[in-house]
Amino acid sequence: MDTLFSHATVVTMDESMHIYTDGFVGITGGRIAYVGKNPPPEGGKPRKIIDAAGMVLMPGLINCHTHLPMTILRGCADDYDLQTWLTQHIFPREDRLDDRCVKAAALLGIAECLQFGVTSVSEMYDHVGAIAEAAAESGIKANISRGTTMFIGDDFDFETFPACRELAAAREKWDGYDSGRLRIEAAIHAEYTSTHQLWDAVSEYCINEGVRLQVHLSETENEHSSCLEKYGLTPAEVLDCHHVFDVPAVAAHCVWLSESDMKLLAKRKVSAVHCPVSNLKLASGVADVPAMVRAGMNVALGTDGTASNNNLDLFEEIKYAALLAKEKHHDPTALAAPAALMMATVCGARAQGREAECGMIKTGMDADLILLDFTRPHLMPCHNVLSSLAYSARGGDVVMTMVRGRILYAEGKFPTIDLSAVVKDLAEYAMPRVFHPEEQEAKS
Amino acid sequence: MDTLFSHATVVTMDESMHIYTDGFVGITGGRIAYVGKNPPPEGGKPRKIIDAAGMVLMPGLINCHTHLPMTILRGCADDYDLQTWLTQHIFPREDRLDDRCVKAAALLGIAECLQFGVTSVSEMYDHVGAIAEAAAESGIKANISRGTTMFIGDDFDFETFPACRELAAAREKWDGYDSGRLRIEAAIHAEYTSTHQLWDAVSEYCINEGVRLQVHLSETENEHSSCLEKYGLTPAEVLDCHHVFDVPAVAAHCVWLSESDMKLLAKRKVSAVHCPVSNLKLASGVADVPAMVRAGMNVALGTDGTASNNNLDLFEEIKYAALLAKEKHHDPTALAAPAALMMATVCGARAQGREAECGMIKTGMDADLILLDFTRPHLMPCHNVLSSLAYSARGGDVVMTMVRGRILYAEGKFPTIDLSAVVKDLAEYAMPRVFHPEEQEAKS
Repeated sequence: MDTLFSHATVVTMDESMHIYTDGFVGITGGRIAYVGKNPPPEGGKPRKIIDAAGMVLMPGLINCHTHLPMTILRGCADDYDLQTWLTQHIFPREDRLDDRCVKAAALLGIAECLQFGVTSVSEMYDHVGAIAEAAAESGIKANISRGTTMFIGDDFDFETFPACRELAAAREKWDGYDSGRLRIEAAIHAEYTSTHQLWDAVSEYCINEGVRLQVHLSETENEHSSCLEKYGLTPAEVLDCHHVFDVPAVAAHCVWLSESDMKLLAKRKVSAVHCPVSNLKLASGVADVPAMVRAGMNVALGTDGTASNNNLDLFEEIKYAALLAKEKHHDPTALAAPAALMMATVCGARAQGREAECGMIKTGMDADLILLDFTRPHLMPCHNVLSSLAYSARGGDVVMTMVRGRILYAEGKFPTIDLSAVVKDLAEYAMPRVFHPEEQEAKS
Repeated sequence: MDTLFSHATVVTMDESMHIYTDGFVGITGGRIAYVGKNPPPEGGKPRKIIDAAGMVLMPGLINCHTHLPMTILRGCADDYDLQTWLTQHIFPREDRLDDRCVKAAALLGIAECLQFGVTSVSEMYDHVGAIAEAAAESGIKANISRGTTMFIGDDFDFETFPACRELAAAREKWDGYDSGRLRIEAAIHAEYTSTHQLWDAVSEYCINEGVRLQVHLSETENEHSSCLEKYGLTPAEVLDCHHVFDVPAVAAHCVWLSESDMKLLAKRKVSAVHCPVSNLKLASGVADVPAMVRAGMNVALGTDGTASNNNLDLFEEIKYAALLAKEKHHDPTALAAPAALMMATVCGARAQGREAECGMIKTGMDADLILLDFTRPHLMPCHNVLSSLAYSARGGDVVMTMVRGRILYAEGKFPTIDLSAVVKDLAEYAMPRVFHPEEQEAKS
């Protein structure tokens, strides 16, 4: 046995929601080898023992929708209306990103994820090669997709379309990297930023190649109703007509789904990713999570990017999800703590196609684990650990993050990320390039 | 000069919202003696220099509505409907609290407040003497009120009514303690838990004695409409008829105020205290903060008690307030970061009657200050410090809390609170008494 956690409150998130109040979890070869309320037989002979008294050990969280490199834009444009935000502040700056900027910004985002107990992310952006490099070096798990857009008048050929070429190249280099730690997926940015030629081509590619897909779906009322006007179909319906959901897919936001959309997506086994903080911040609305669950959909959680949040703290999303559901349904019993925690763990694993390997503490699964310090005032007393995790805890309470048995964050340090080098590169290269291009031009 | 903070990003929250990016703040005799972008003249000759490079220095936050001793009930009863929650889980346990339980639980709550950067609280509960002792010992500022209730059939005489006697006794012992650090106020729990005899008597007492008042107001739709049915008046109107708002008052929640209520309360200079997390958790609704502000009301922030939150993190409330306002008004520009931060600082000071002494970093004001560590991944890069404070930061980012120049929290430690003794007393005395009374009886 490589590592043994002792005396932890173990929140397994397994099918019976077992909780061990003075429990032991043993790890061998990056996998969970033992879970129990007693020490393992013959002590397990671990090479390392982590005394977790006063701590909660739980599965690492899974952030199912983000745009990691947007850390570089964190707080640069808040409290604007959506059009001004996008067209004047976000797009012009994103256009100036290159691979080096993206890698540094992604590493900063990954550090934040690890510090806050996230062990796997689903990512949609461009420069996916740079993001994959960052994920590969850091040790985090990631399902990385290349967001594709296409407008009427674009000539379209999958083989030559830049975004699709980038997708194909990234798949070749990175898909399955490190025994599946990294996966490359396809993405259609959204219905309203693309046309049927793209949908047909991407869905055909995914079906032929066995590739999963990510898409933004019905995020705003305007998007949803404009689609109805244009096609007489909802975004979910029109994409489904073009076989987009014939492969495992993840739909972010799902704020304005109709009831029949939910039934359709449930039938197609599309996972929704609820991003409550981003939805509120951009005044997009509040997705109806209980209704989606009732319709049979798997609903996971995501932070979206840091330009509309502005952090990557999935514990924050857990609480927002639970509280907003109670308000939306005028029912304090709606989306209770256990369900909210499931969204961030088992449901996230299912959305990523990783349900066999993570999301629970169970023998045979990957040791993707986090420890939280429950000796802090706001986590005492602990009458109900699931309540405390959902309603009191925050990402900042995480003191250790481990992926496949490897510690990627502990005691304020990141063994796999040189954070000061990343910050320096952002400050000296990336931010001037993105925010002060006129000075860059003057220099050259 | 006693203390000099150097090289901080100083967020003054003053009338011009001055921010110094490499600033200096000097303290003498518990007051702010210097604020500037250069070191003080002749170096100030401070006895202690705190190098705050990479940190943000701002005014301590003011939590304008809480029930500190409810920390003992944290997480014991979540995700229930309101009636079950109150009648089966909260009230029976509260009935078993004594002064010793309340003091320990209040000290735990105060520790949490200090750890999260709160330097002053407005409190409503009973056993106010015990709470005052806790506040006195800890060094925090507090406006403490005795929540009074009265039901038809109660005989009423102010001099002998237990809650009012407790109020009078607490005022005599604690009001103005330590040069006004503690203040004792009156409180009417709510319109629906009392009758006009109480309102008349308490308002008369407050007017005669110059005492401020706290009240829960229009928290739920049921409360608001039941009052209209009973009296033909809203809760605000009926209390106003009985002169309750003839003294400076603070009204918590204000979720269901009518437009004319807002005008009335603005005219009476009643401060509202917005408690967004609690309101969502109990499915009470979302108060219309922009409308209250437009009507001329001062609106502060509060956490309510930890049984309906479940933490005392006012940074969390800041973000919820901003985001919920955007959603409620379908407007991403609503309640922007500066306004949300003002609610937790200057507006809170105004609500407490402390606007001359705290809420801003300004020479002459009390040195009620907090430091946040901005070298953490989620706070980098910092394009806009007010955005970062509102949308990225959390209570856990506070690394130092100071009240009147005295450090009450730093580096994980509480110089004025023996936290392990408090936790021990809660575990060995208070929790058995409150949660296992049958075992207590068996023993005796």
